[in-house]
Amino acid sequence: MVEKVVQTDQSKAYAVLKADADKILKLIQVQMDNLTMPQCPLYEEVLDTQMFGLSREIDFAVRLHLIDEDEGKALLDNLEKQLNILHEKAQAGY
Amino acid sequence: MVEKVVQTDQSKAYAVLKADADKILKLIQVQMDNLTMPQCPLYEEVLDTQMFGLSREIDFAVRLHLIDEDEGKALLDNLEKQLNILHEKAQAGY
Repeated sequence: MVEKVVQTDQSKAYAVLKADADKILKLIQVQMDNLTMPQCPLYEEVLDTQMFGLSREIDFAVRLHLIDEDEGKALLDNLEKQLNILHEKAQAGY
Repeated sequence: MVEKVVQTDQSKAYAVLKADADKILKLIQVQMDNLTMPQCPLYEEVLDTQMFGLSREIDFAVRLHLIDEDEGKALLDNLEKQLNILHEKAQAGY
């Protein structure tokens, strides 16, 4: 078997992860606008699962040195902050 | 900002994913041996979440060409097969 080496720009790995984080934010935004209230257990479950999925992606990227650990942590923290803002806005609306 | 390029052996990326798949199998094994029965909703939820996390990792790796799409699919399929065997064994035991 030939050992294949793949070259990855760190910025590309980061961009893919950032796009996934944005997708989660968008999903939650749509969910809040149209489907369920933030108190709904289903909402919590979707969010938890999505966040878990992203954290697994980031963890994988960090282990392969595709992004720095700090960058990965900041990406998750930032998403959480934005989700909190969304959440507060939704609650203020009810 | 300096653009950093990371070199990754495909076999290494695969090995990291395989180790994560094995970890899920181990987790479910322990859960079956000690905690809950396969009919338990909590068991289903843990398993679904773990599988989702792994599928996100694999999807990320495929998008960055760190593993082939077929390899990724085979890894997930194989894990599912092994989990089914575990599941059947557990059910036969009750």
